Amino acid sequence: MEQNRFARAGSDQDLSAHFAMVRGATDALCLGLSEADAVVQSMEDASPAKWHMAHTSWFFEAFLLEPHLPNYQPFNLAFSYLFNSYYEGAGERHARPRRGMITRPSLEDVRAYRRHVDEGMSALLQGADPETTALATLGLHHEQQHQELLLTDILHLFAQNPIRPAYRGGEPLAVTTTQPDPLDWHRFDGGLCDIGADSKSFHFDCESPRHHALLRPFELASRAVTNAEWIEFIEDGGYTTPALWLSDGWTTVQSEGWTAPLYWVHEDGAWQSMTLRGFQPVDLAAPVCHISQYEADAFASWAGARLPTEVEWERAAADQTVTGNFASSGRLRPRPQRGGAASLVGLFGDVWEWTASAFLPYPGFVPLEGTVGEYNGKFMSGQMVLRGGSCATPGGHVRASYRNFFQPEKRWQFSGLRLARDAS
Amino acid sequence: MEQNRFARAGSDQDLSAHFAMVRGATDALCLGLSEADAVVQSMEDASPAKWHMAHTSWFFEAFLLEPHLPNYQPFNLAFSYLFNSYYEGAGERHARPRRGMITRPSLEDVRAYRRHVDEGMSALLQGADPETTALATLGLHHEQQHQELLLTDILHLFAQNPIRPAYRGGEPLAVTTTQPDPLDWHRFDGGLCDIGADSKSFHFDCESPRHHALLRPFELASRAVTNAEWIEFIEDGGYTTPALWLSDGWTTVQSEGWTAPLYWVHEDGAWQSMTLRGFQPVDLAAPVCHISQYEADAFASWAGARLPTEVEWERAAADQTVTGNFASSGRLRPRPQRGGAASLVGLFGDVWEWTASAFLPYPGFVPLEGTVGEYNGKFMSGQMVLRGGSCATPGGHVRASYRNFFQPEKRWQFSGLRLARDAS
Amino acid sequence: MEQNRFARAGSDQDLSAHFAMVRGATDALCLGLSEADAVVQSMEDASPAKWHMAHTSWFFEAFLLEPHLPNYQPFNLAFSYLFNSYYEGAGERHARPRRGMITRPSLEDVRAYRRHVDEGMSALLQGADPETTALATLGLHHEQQHQELLLTDILHLFAQNPIRPAYRGGEPLAVTTTQPDPLDWHRFDGGLCDIGADSKSFHFDCESPRHHALLRPFELASRAVTNAEWIEFIEDGGYTTPALWLSDGWTTVQSEGWTAPLYWVHEDGAWQSMTLRGFQPVDLAAPVCHISQYEADAFASWAGARLPTEVEWERAAADQTVTGNFASSGRLRPRPQRGGAASLVGLFGDVWEWTASAFLPYPGFVPLEGTVGEYNGKFMSGQMVLRGGSCATPGGHVRASYRNFFQPEKRWQFSGLRLARDAS
Amino acid sequence: MEQNRFARAGSDQDLSAHFAMVRGATDALCLGLSEADAVVQSMEDASPAKWHMAHTSWFFEAFLLEPHLPNYQPFNLAFSYLFNSYYEGAGERHARPRRGMITRPSLEDVRAYRRHVDEGMSALLQGADPETTALATLGLHHEQQHQELLLTDILHLFAQNPIRPAYRGGEPLAVTTTQPDPLDWHRFDGGLCDIGADSKSFHFDCESPRHHALLRPFELASRAVTNAEWIEFIEDGGYTTPALWLSDGWTTVQSEGWTAPLYWVHEDGAWQSMTLRGFQPVDLAAPVCHISQYEADAFASWAGARLPTEVEWERAAADQTVTGNFASSGRLRPRPQRGGAASLVGLFGDVWEWTASAFLPYPGFVPLEGTVGEYNGKFMSGQMVLRGGSCATPGGHVRASYRNFFQPEKRWQFSGLRLARDAS
Repeated sequence: MEQNRFARAGSDQDLSAHFAMVRGATDALCLGLSEADAVVQSMEDASPAKWHMAHTSWFFEAFLLEPHLPNYQPFNLAFSYLFNSYYEGAGERHARPRRGMITRPSLEDVRAYRRHVDEGMSALLQGADPETTALATLGLHHEQQHQELLLTDILHLFAQNPIRPAYRGGEPLAVTTTQPDPLDWHRFDGGLCDIGADSKSFHFDCESPRHHALLRPFELASRAVTNAEWIEFIEDGGYTTPALWLSDGWTTVQSEGWTAPLYWVHEDGAWQSMTLRGFQPVDLAAPVCHISQYEADAFASWAGARLPTEVEWERAAADQTVTGNFASSGRLRPRPQRGGAASLVGLFGDVWEWTASAFLPYPGFVPLEGTVGEYNGKFMSGQMVLRGGSCATPGGHVRASYRNFFQPEKRWQFSGLRLARDAS
Repeated sequence: MEQNRFARAGSDQDLSAHFAMVRGATDALCLGLSEADAVVQSMEDASPAKWHMAHTSWFFEAFLLEPHLPNYQPFNLAFSYLFNSYYEGAGERHARPRRGMITRPSLEDVRAYRRHVDEGMSALLQGADPETTALATLGLHHEQQHQELLLTDILHLFAQNPIRPAYRGGEPLAVTTTQPDPLDWHRFDGGLCDIGADSKSFHFDCESPRHHALLRPFELASRAVTNAEWIEFIEDGGYTTPALWLSDGWTTVQSEGWTAPLYWVHEDGAWQSMTLRGFQPVDLAAPVCHISQYEADAFASWAGARLPTEVEWERAAADQTVTGNFASSGRLRPRPQRGGAASLVGLFGDVWEWTASAFLPYPGFVPLEGTVGEYNGKFMSGQMVLRGGSCATPGGHVRASYRNFFQPEKRWQFSGLRLARDAS
Repeated sequence: MEQNRFARAGSDQDLSAHFAMVRGATDALCLGLSEADAVVQSMEDASPAKWHMAHTSWFFEAFLLEPHLPNYQPFNLAFSYLFNSYYEGAGERHARPRRGMITRPSLEDVRAYRRHVDEGMSALLQGADPETTALATLGLHHEQQHQELLLTDILHLFAQNPIRPAYRGGEPLAVTTTQPDPLDWHRFDGGLCDIGADSKSFHFDCESPRHHALLRPFELASRAVTNAEWIEFIEDGGYTTPALWLSDGWTTVQSEGWTAPLYWVHEDGAWQSMTLRGFQPVDLAAPVCHISQYEADAFASWAGARLPTEVEWERAAADQTVTGNFASSGRLRPRPQRGGAASLVGLFGDVWEWTASAFLPYPGFVPLEGTVGEYNGKFMSGQMVLRGGSCATPGGHVRASYRNFFQPEKRWQFSGLRLARDAS
Repeated sequence: MEQNRFARAGSDQDLSAHFAMVRGATDALCLGLSEADAVVQSMEDASPAKWHMAHTSWFFEAFLLEPHLPNYQPFNLAFSYLFNSYYEGAGERHARPRRGMITRPSLEDVRAYRRHVDEGMSALLQGADPETTALATLGLHHEQQHQELLLTDILHLFAQNPIRPAYRGGEPLAVTTTQPDPLDWHRFDGGLCDIGADSKSFHFDCESPRHHALLRPFELASRAVTNAEWIEFIEDGGYTTPALWLSDGWTTVQSEGWTAPLYWVHEDGAWQSMTLRGFQPVDLAAPVCHISQYEADAFASWAGARLPTEVEWERAAADQTVTGNFASSGRLRPRPQRGGAASLVGLFGDVWEWTASAFLPYPGFVPLEGTVGEYNGKFMSGQMVLRGGSCATPGGHVRASYRNFFQPEKRWQFSGLRLARDAS
């Protein structure tokens, strides 16, 4: 294994403390979920919260504790079968669509499993060698990915419930009554640029190798497309005009009966939608969310623009500080992106931005050896890249080189878009 | 409404006490189920335990409390939508395959709903008029039907779980090591007989009118077919011999890959199966269970016999006392049927016995007017009749005229068979 | 084999001549079909005309020529695989849904196959023994069944074609502008009656044994339900009122989007439909056709009546001469049934009449031994009985005891209904 | 419209003669097909030969004759509905999966349609203006695409037929008994290169704009992967080793039960397969064919190599003459590629070579305006690029910049692979 891929951000950081913080964040996300909320699988793409809690622990048990911690006693041998996800090399596993059948072990059992693994890891991380450190770091980033999925999956589950539960209540969220900021375009020159992660800090395998890429001059919108703009698209017949759509997109619009983003309902004279804060009016000035790449592409066509490539996006993001509206803000909804006249705003956080790029290996990419090598390479088919993180992404998880990826028809992630166009 | 259909067994019985007993039995069945166990729907045919608890209460609320109890306050208006089952006349309802999405209301909320309904019913049953009494009695029999479904659905759910939970543990169940009793045949003369419920005691609409039927001489097996006999059928190639099967049955065998009854696994050199007592060796002397009508029919062909018609079955059962291994025994598994040389044994309890009869209206059948009239008549298509009750049927629920019905491919009920043949 | 089941109508009849006539009728039905028309399978339920031509010949080859004609040379060994239908005992067969892939052998090859078989049969029928005679007679009745299917399958195929071809053109068919005759009711007493075929003339296995049945007094409508009446049902909301429908029927109405009988289109201000005479206005006075049993049942509920049982239907038909509008009339569409005030009209011909009876074995039914024994018994599950024949049934094919059967959701046969009701 | 995109190769060429030649080639491909062969649709991806014949004519009628030829009389107004393919802008169209229902118009009618269109085009091409010339040229290239599909679709149809018809018979094809040539690697330097079509000759919209691309040093195999090598892959457990496969690929292997390329059967002790020459032994020295991109990718992993990107492929092909085993050779099967030690062989013809590149727009790509603009851009989602043409591609149709594209699971095209690897 290339050490650089999984190196921690810096040796001055306390890995044990980081471990405790990330693991604790998962537990915190599950506060307020009932045993019932935590067990149900609302669709094949989603997983129960309890499964996320257990699977992330299984990762540490299977790849770190069992091979590396002397005398480690697995918590329960059945868990390896139940909570493996897709690692073919790690043995038989419970079928994905049946994850919601696992009413037992109980949520309390899974919490005990987490504690058992935490204790083992606490021992293992004392004086960990570089390989262990690298694997543990990978495990924490893996857990952060599942933290975001846990949120998107809970939202999907609650959206199936006619009584429309709120994942988080609390103070009312003021809805923006003002209009979004006007959209500006920011120009970037063409030429050679470098993209991909450098070797000094943690990144996933698919972000490397860092390599040269060729750009033509392009412009990028100052902010993401807003709900107000999306409503214009709807009202202008966006969902009923085949010429705007990719062929597969149009087929999907018709077979699924799409007429608006996922979770949107036109009720009481206005667009409203399920959110992690319950059923809420659509915030006109905020970025549109829960759209497929097909919809993003059709919108861009309608707007006389296009989606950026991932190279363009990373070129633009490379100059930016990684700050924004992440899950750590506690807001859990996209926020209006303000102030983009002078510079790009909102590249990080709020919504993942669909790109025009397929998720494919970078030049020179070689999958890791062994079971952990099943990490990202095997998904390099049929998926499109999203960039920048969302309001459900853990703070500190993403970076400019971060590549998220989903099939173009998926909508249950916090996915939106930012427009691009060719420049002369 | 014809009063006789829903009349209580007798005026000397305390309906209020009966109400309390039946409702309490539902609660008792749910003891030991976690919030998670109670919410998951393991297949479209099954419903979550929580749904059964709420739907049976909704029946009383919708058909009795709201129309008949002055000033009744519904517990929660959303529940009417969530917990209606198939009563088109009673308004919109939550789609059946999505019953498992209802993580909220919580199990505790549903228990409170039950108590709220119980309190209302307690008031309503004071000095109830005959119509109210009849409807309440219907509601209790309806609840008993759901008690059995609750058990079959929990078994199905637990059977999906690789860790194979036991619904009820307790003392170990001795497995029969002796052989089943030999099978005897009991002869019945042909001629006219009367079948169907008489008007004096409670029965479902589909059991009436009582009417003449014509019989030819026939013989009925002294006991149900046993697991030992079923294993013979398997070992003799029963599941791979198309000539034994109905055409639809053979198609299903192939598409579903059936090679044994539902829940059977050949493991560690022997047939074992999931039961409400957990994963257990198959009891050779006990009646076979969890078979489809297709399998029952194929077995009968293999055995040189046939399934009885429901008229034949009822003719034989009319002479018998309604006793047997019901859910009230607490055993929750079929028990070897002994002593059949002198008389028929096991007609009631242990396993529902598939018949050769389609579930169709009796001559002169007229569905009830109104929403309650959706009770049984609308299901008189594509289903086959089963008779006699099972080890999951509440004690006191069935009678000789009782008609249960399922599609011929269903296997998750406690369904078995008894052989019949023509007599000269 | 019981000889009586397959005995010819009388020894004075020339079987060879009958053979030639029936076989020639199949050829005549195919006149005007192109090689393309004859090869395409328009749905899984239907078969290509070429397949019908070949399969009916295969029956004679497999059950008569190969076992009984010395030195018979099979026409082509591959045909046995290609043109077996459902006889599991007769070896592997080509999958039903793939019958439309057989572009070769050509139509001319299949015609040659027919001639080859005809020549063999001509030799075999010289001085045929009773078993051969019985089997040959069965083969001819089997071929007549396929003649009707050939017509219904061609109509289905042509109805898929936007240019709406006519199977038969010729003189224009005057559309009835007058109203249907008023509907009268004919009363029948209750009591014992005999139904089923007697042993003296040919019948299919499922029509026997002839046996006693018990009837209650009933009334039968003087004629079948007309298109005019069906339009009333539509306009009165028949297809949008769940209370009228069996549960499975209502599910099907919704999933299939049924709003009228199969092939009906409301175009240019009137109901029109595809027929074997091309696209034609619906004939108001003629019997409604191409309806499922679900629709028949819902209509009967709407009309305050019910479907007759097959016993009732046969009781009424037993007194009638078997005449009517069969395929031999050349009309190929149902014809208004006139003159029913004095007696029942139209029991035979025009449209098959759905009954309320499931297709199940008669008391004492025993399937034939051997491969031919797969004839009807294996289909005794999930299907409903239709009686009386249609305008697509070969003349001379049906009789009062004839039992046709299809799944209740099927509509591509010439299926209609006649109302019944209880009498006091 | 950019003229250069659809410009003919040179003004010295007689477009009318070219038109006659291409149109005649379609007719020649259909020689030997019966009316039945020409009408059946063997799967949703495939189309009937008659449909290809008509649809290619419809293209000329809809885009050239109707808008541009004064007084043109459409052959039949229904054909526009029947034979439109995916041009949403050109009006309603017959559903793709139902193309096989069109038994009428007859094959002869469609031939007459072709002649009618040819006559119209003959008039239109007299003194055609540049736009007409460009569109006609596009129509001919479009027709050539359908010529290849016609062959692949006929092969698929015949492969469904248990009697295994041969599309073309003729002299026996000697099967190679010698081994394939050893595989050599050819190195290419990294750096900037230009790919995409230049503007001087005809190309499809998706091949432009020509643009700079960046390459890293790479090596390309001297020839395509052979059947002998594929058998090694099979025998080494290629189809049962999940680690070799993309996740979607492995899912497909399991759901489809793939164990060898499409059409392969292990019979009589050897691999054999359906070909356009009938059922034939697999030719060990010839390129493997009828594999999905998933299989190509898994093979490359097994071989310690990878698929080339389309940039790499085009870089290598740019130096080569476009010659090879195309349909015009009449062979209609891949041929062993010999002599690759000194140079790359077989880049053109034999089999389309799957690349690692998704079919996406080139930088600066802008779809054409109007209905013809639906040409390729709308398919830029979910498909992978193939390069080089096959033994079913018309001679003269492909070039180095030609981009073919299919979903990665498709196998019925003549698709194979050539290995690549990184060079230092």
